[in-house]
Amino acid sequence: MAGIMISGTGVSEGIRSGKVFLYKPLINQDKPVHETISEEQINDELQRLQLAKEKSHRELNELIERTRAELGKDKAAILMAQQAFLNDPSFCPEMEKGIRQHQYSAEKAVNEVVERFATIFEGMNDEYLRERAADVRDVGKRLILHLQGKKGVQLSDIKEEVILVADDLAPSDTVQLNKKYVQGFVTRVGGKTSHTAILSRSLGIPAVVGLGENIEQINDGDFLIIDGSTGTCIVNPDNQLTKEYEVKRKREEEELQELEKFTFKPAITTDGFRVEIAANIGTPAEAKPALEHGAEGIGLYRTEFLFMNETTMPSEEKQFAAYKQVVSTMGDKPVIIRTLDIGGDKELPYLSLPKEMNPFLGYRAIRLSLDQSELLVTQLRAILRASAYGKVKIMFPMISSLEEWRQAKHIFEEVKDQLAKEGVEFDPSVEVGIMVEVPSTAILADKFAKEVDFFSIGTNDLVQYTIAVDRMNEKIGYLYDHLHPAVIRLVKQVIEASHREGKWTGMCGGMAGDPLAAPLLIGLGLDEWSMVAGSIKKVKQVISQISRGECEKLLEEIQTLTTTSEVRKKLAEFQKEKGLYNSK
Amino acid sequence: MAGIMISGTGVSEGIRSGKVFLYKPLINQDKPVHETISEEQINDELQRLQLAKEKSHRELNELIERTRAELGKDKAAILMAQQAFLNDPSFCPEMEKGIRQHQYSAEKAVNEVVERFATIFEGMNDEYLRERAADVRDVGKRLILHLQGKKGVQLSDIKEEVILVADDLAPSDTVQLNKKYVQGFVTRVGGKTSHTAILSRSLGIPAVVGLGENIEQINDGDFLIIDGSTGTCIVNPDNQLTKEYEVKRKREEEELQELEKFTFKPAITTDGFRVEIAANIGTPAEAKPALEHGAEGIGLYRTEFLFMNETTMPSEEKQFAAYKQVVSTMGDKPVIIRTLDIGGDKELPYLSLPKEMNPFLGYRAIRLSLDQSELLVTQLRAILRASAYGKVKIMFPMISSLEEWRQAKHIFEEVKDQLAKEGVEFDPSVEVGIMVEVPSTAILADKFAKEVDFFSIGTNDLVQYTIAVDRMNEKIGYLYDHLHPAVIRLVKQVIEASHREGKWTGMCGGMAGDPLAAPLLIGLGLDEWSMVAGSIKKVKQVISQISRGECEKLLEEIQTLTTTSEVRKKLAEFQKEKGLYNSK
Repeated sequence: MAGIMISGTGVSEGIRSGKVFLYKPLINQDKPVHETISEEQINDELQRLQLAKEKSHRELNELIERTRAELGKDKAAILMAQQAFLNDPSFCPEMEKGIRQHQYSAEKAVNEVVERFATIFEGMNDEYLRERAADVRDVGKRLILHLQGKKGVQLSDIKEEVILVADDLAPSDTVQLNKKYVQGFVTRVGGKTSHTAILSRSLGIPAVVGLGENIEQINDGDFLIIDGSTGTCIVNPDNQLTKEYEVKRKREEEELQELEKFTFKPAITTDGFRVEIAANIGTPAEAKPALEHGAEGIGLYRTEFLFMNETTMPSEEKQFAAYKQVVSTMGDKPVIIRTLDIGGDKELPYLSLPKEMNPFLGYRAIRLSLDQSELLVTQLRAILRASAYGKVKIMFPMISSLEEWRQAKHIFEEVKDQLAKEGVEFDPSVEVGIMVEVPSTAILADKFAKEVDFFSIGTNDLVQYTIAVDRMNEKIGYLYDHLHPAVIRLVKQVIEASHREGKWTGMCGGMAGDPLAAPLLIGLGLDEWSMVAGSIKKVKQVISQISRGECEKLLEEIQTLTTTSEVRKKLAEFQKEKGLYNSK
Repeated sequence: MAGIMISGTGVSEGIRSGKVFLYKPLINQDKPVHETISEEQINDELQRLQLAKEKSHRELNELIERTRAELGKDKAAILMAQQAFLNDPSFCPEMEKGIRQHQYSAEKAVNEVVERFATIFEGMNDEYLRERAADVRDVGKRLILHLQGKKGVQLSDIKEEVILVADDLAPSDTVQLNKKYVQGFVTRVGGKTSHTAILSRSLGIPAVVGLGENIEQINDGDFLIIDGSTGTCIVNPDNQLTKEYEVKRKREEEELQELEKFTFKPAITTDGFRVEIAANIGTPAEAKPALEHGAEGIGLYRTEFLFMNETTMPSEEKQFAAYKQVVSTMGDKPVIIRTLDIGGDKELPYLSLPKEMNPFLGYRAIRLSLDQSELLVTQLRAILRASAYGKVKIMFPMISSLEEWRQAKHIFEEVKDQLAKEGVEFDPSVEVGIMVEVPSTAILADKFAKEVDFFSIGTNDLVQYTIAVDRMNEKIGYLYDHLHPAVIRLVKQVIEASHREGKWTGMCGGMAGDPLAAPLLIGLGLDEWSMVAGSIKKVKQVISQISRGECEKLLEEIQTLTTTSEVRKKLAEFQKEKGLYNSK
């Protein structure tokens, strides 16, 4: 074999080749840091921390400016979120407390608070919020770097075409990657759902992660080919191999160019069934990029982020401003705002949340909103006020019984009456629906369909509860699969129930953005599909190549199958037969 | 009003009256105990602990002898379980470690280990094991008592008719209650599902718990009437009131005598539909009492207890002995043995179990048994060997997909082949079924029914996953209800699926023992009902008073309802109309 072939997990497709740029983190993890200090050192240590904080702040400022200019506003937003942590009213003050009260060294104080914050984020149910853990760690790394008097290599300094090779990449590293120069990257750690993997896909940079020890075979300056689909890396390949990959790359590029054409096309099957393709977002800043990716609406606007990193409950005004921004950005396109979906796996200083044994089966989402209804009232007021500026729909998360739905709907009607009395402007025809993510609600979909305006199936939670599996649990994560035959049955039941009552069903979990599942969802007649913006064009492409008729036939066959692997096999066969987008 | 009327939660029905015996715990919780000791005191402290341990051991010995003679073997078993904790290879040694390594006082060391153990038990999914937390705390209390040089009042010393009034009762208190003298009891703390409540029902002693501050109005020597159904207590009632309650009591006693008649009768509806009423047990010692309560079989033998309090995996021989004892005791009556249902919410020194964020959605039960299959093989060998001595059936817990069932069944067939090769005796026709407790399995019941021999619906977990509610979580426990319309639908689906394939369905969760639910379950055609032994006669009585025909009509009406409270109301109406047993 001409060239050393090593393999990892391909997480962002594309074939690339180039010179290796070996990126070494500057923090020497082996070097022990003083953990505690004497009482006399407290003031010095506080000052060291303050200085590191100021330097980090300035550095982030520069980075934000540069990123905004070179790579755009939405990439800069990630760095701004990191800067927000530095200014958070509990983040740095907690570190100072550690130095003062426990006589921690500044490094120890930083690490302790960073881990505490990161653990809270990691424990969250919502993927979007979970990713914030990496941001917190990234800020921590920057602080430590400055405490140690070092300056990080700026990846934005790279000005030639390279393949980046590193142990891992932090979010602030990743946003600095200029696609013009950084052709692809390869890391030692990580897996399909790691932070780096998600970011590489959203940036569209081919990437292979999780190379492990094998990464040691790659040296600075080597020539490297990587295939982000298969996870293959070839170090110093011979000419023949290089040519082979060049051909593959060209074919792939043509396919990708073809894909780009679908961005702003409607999603219509060959026999004329049109569905709405929308995006999931977590902050107002994401609305515009969603439009640029071809979103025909926002199918899920998670409002949790507004409530985090705050010492007091966000006011009606503050919420209104955020909701209005999203609604205005989207113009006449629909925006579905989900009320607060937060629970006992995290702490908010202004909410008393109990420590729970099984937070996913606990006090959260609508359960909390109905229990602390002043919270729901404020949020509904803000959302309704924003409805005057566009096309708003509202949905309640984690509804498990008709009683909960009726209570929430009742509060909604009261808030509407109150606003009308106050003469405040709002859209009186705002649709109100529910997330279908608890099995009991899917099972009773026929009863719910008579009362709600729409359903939005949250497959991530629905799968977790239906199969009784916490997908973040490494030991049993393999059981989590939205193509489990029982999940397909529930989804079918929900969509059919809504249609019988003349209502519509959306989906805002991972299943909606999975190109492999798209023919199945067309067969099921799903009306609205909401996904991460990056998946939109792929899903549109798949839909435009299939007919509803053949998908209904496919669905019939799938219903006879008994296992997830049989379903996957059948869908893969269909995909291959039709020459559809090859999902990774 | 003549007499002070105060009320708590009635947890064990029956009206009783008598002189108050005020039972005061001897441990003064306010008195602060030295938490730490100096290095020189370590040896003295270890000796103090050793002495307390020996005294506790002797005291338990005496208690066990006396309880066995006066109250029977099964009550003595609870105390023997406590003695087992004292001899546990990690219980006391962990306390010694606390003294040695952390220089804890003996009291602090005891409390720390007791809380650690109790927390592990409390976190368990299984009600039976959860109750063991109270035993651990009870042993701890006894140790502390002896460390403080005090001797507890022995409740078995009570030799006159009294109503016992206390803050709370520990398991070792409760088993000493002689029904001849202790007419009833009243406690300050506790609720419907507290340990004391469960024990009072199984002992058949009327009880009111959770009186709170009101309990202060009761003094030693007062005359007290308690109504364990309504939770009413009357202190020093006048003659008229006393007479009224005497009449009520007589009527209740007649009803209870009537109830006794059903103990050994078969459960047949007025139109001739017969079902099997079985008991749930956790240890071999419980088999005989189950028979005495009228059990026609064991519908669920939990094998977890065998695996707890051990430093190594219980051997095939040890397991065989336990299984054989149950099977032999039951004679020709069926015994369904469930394979190990244990998971990440607890630690076993010989199993590596990860710490989990959401243990109920984690690595447990069949997931663990398939991953560590040597464990399943050993258990299946022991069960199959025991099958030669009676009528054994096997079921696998927490099956969530057909793949898991097929893997488990495959291992079962291999074990059978191996035993046959070895010439070991076993029943080759042992039925093999699954617990239906994960929603996906209920939803796919038609597919499973083609492959399994039987279903056993575990309503406790099924309800938890279906409604996404951890019922031990106080904040949202109110959502947990086995009469949720979605749960009824799933149960219906499972029973129908089994019947279509000529198989049968059992139920071993709390729903099976709920007299209110009995007409519904008859309407659904449930074949085998397994419950705590104490509920058997009540359920038999209800079944013998209704017809399958009217229950099917009732079921039809219930299926039109949308909420749990509507279902409860409808069932209560039916119960009243038919004059059925009044469930508490």
